[in-house]
Amino acid sequence: MLRHVAIVGVGLIGSSFALAAKRSDPALSIIGLDKCATSLNQARERGAIDSVGTFEQAGSADLILLAIPVRQMAVALERLAPCLADHAVIIDAGSTKQDVMAVARTTLGMRAGQFVATHPIAGRERHGPMAADESLFQGKNVVLCASPANNAAAVSTAREAWQLVGANVVEMAAAAHDSVFAAVSHLPHMLAFALVDELASRPNAKLLFEHAASGFRDFTRIASSSPEMWRDIALNNRPALLAELDAYLGKAKELRDLLAAADDAGLFALMLRARDARERWLSGQLDQFNDDTK
Amino acid sequence: MLRHVAIVGVGLIGSSFALAAKRSDPALSIIGLDKCATSLNQARERGAIDSVGTFEQAGSADLILLAIPVRQMAVALERLAPCLADHAVIIDAGSTKQDVMAVARTTLGMRAGQFVATHPIAGRERHGPMAADESLFQGKNVVLCASPANNAAAVSTAREAWQLVGANVVEMAAAAHDSVFAAVSHLPHMLAFALVDELASRPNAKLLFEHAASGFRDFTRIASSSPEMWRDIALNNRPALLAELDAYLGKAKELRDLLAAADDAGLFALMLRARDARERWLSGQLDQFNDDTK
Repeated sequence: MLRHVAIVGVGLIGSSFALAAKRSDPALSIIGLDKCATSLNQARERGAIDSVGTFEQAGSADLILLAIPVRQMAVALERLAPCLADHAVIIDAGSTKQDVMAVARTTLGMRAGQFVATHPIAGRERHGPMAADESLFQGKNVVLCASPANNAAAVSTAREAWQLVGANVVEMAAAAHDSVFAAVSHLPHMLAFALVDELASRPNAKLLFEHAASGFRDFTRIASSSPEMWRDIALNNRPALLAELDAYLGKAKELRDLLAAADDAGLFALMLRARDARERWLSGQLDQFNDDTK
Repeated sequence: MLRHVAIVGVGLIGSSFALAAKRSDPALSIIGLDKCATSLNQARERGAIDSVGTFEQAGSADLILLAIPVRQMAVALERLAPCLADHAVIIDAGSTKQDVMAVARTTLGMRAGQFVATHPIAGRERHGPMAADESLFQGKNVVLCASPANNAAAVSTAREAWQLVGANVVEMAAAAHDSVFAAVSHLPHMLAFALVDELASRPNAKLLFEHAASGFRDFTRIASSSPEMWRDIALNNRPALLAELDAYLGKAKELRDLLAAADDAGLFALMLRARDARERWLSGQLDQFNDDTK
């Protein structure tokens, strides 16, 4: 049972987790840690955390959530390692999993089993405690990547923590996770950043942005995401993301060549396949997609 | 003053125009033409049109709106040409302008001045009369590309028609229009279609779409658009769109190479430029963009 929770990184994810956990269990005591004093003050003012804590205090909590950019996990885990109590379970909210699990093995050593890798599939382009929302995880998936070092109790604690904030927990191997999210999340982020940078660098950028409308707004929404966070994700999931970028560039080149050849039927077929696939997805007809596990 | 309006194509755009025009001026008489009998029935049931009309009747209306895919404009204009009254003004809602204006010159001949090319910057991925919304054009831009053949009265009628449905009319040269919208609208549509088609063709497509979330949903929203309409737009704005695709592929390759080289600073700089540009755009700080007209 959770009584003491430590949130390392009180941004959108950390503060939303804290608010949702407190709503489910008002008796929880939650401390927050962050490099940024302003964020800590805001998280306290919003009622997400009860007080500001230290790594030493965090180490004796029942649950420690690392809600920080993936490339800052190593430093946080190094600070936690010497003061980690036997009963403490660490979970994270990183968007890549193989890298974070490797860091946990290195930094925690014998205690690596107390770290359970998790990734909430929820986020917004806004960040910081003022953007936090206690319903952020409600009904959303959290991918849990158990390691051979984890014991069943630690995995249960991790699972219950995310269920406490309203999420559905789905287990997946870390390599599969990194490959799937390279395709459906990391790749679109890269493509959106590239489009906005391309157009903003034009001599007539002002004219272009004057006429950009709702289609452009939605397509590029994810380009308002944190550059720091996404640089880290890209670098930490580099092989999978490079493979996705190359596959995408091949498909975009195929579309470009259909257009250059004025291939009416080829363009129509590609667009129709895409439209139909997206409609199947939106209407939950996932059984109509290719499934190589069958 | 408008009394009789003909809507050729009673889909999302045509029916939304009709609903908004009737709200502003309930005395308007509006006829509808469409290849699809179901659409005509729906448009009538929704109160967008008073009755189904013929091209002969349309030719004597005060205003004729062509709200059909751009590659169907030629056939509609050929049908209208022999029955076009002197006072009639034709406007269109096509997403490309140089091609439609060329078709109007060819099909209307001496009457080409009665055609005023317009493009409402409003749309949704849903189509058909059931998706129509009388507020679709409220506060949205409509680009008007006057031709040397247009007299001032025809341009005024076109302008007033779009103002009647709540839009702001902005004048622009047709070549500039086609180049700007290739960048901010046609290109993102192509990129979204390509992404969905790429992922849907994978052997593990089911797994991928199971984990696609809100970022993917917004990025690909425009891939739910009509394949017929977007094939036509792509083919009819081919030179400008090919140039945009090539520029984009170059930028995406640049990002890919930064990632391959693990260029931390280069990736961060690209993402930061994109994020900052999008934030400037959202907050209306357009004066901070490059402006080659100065």
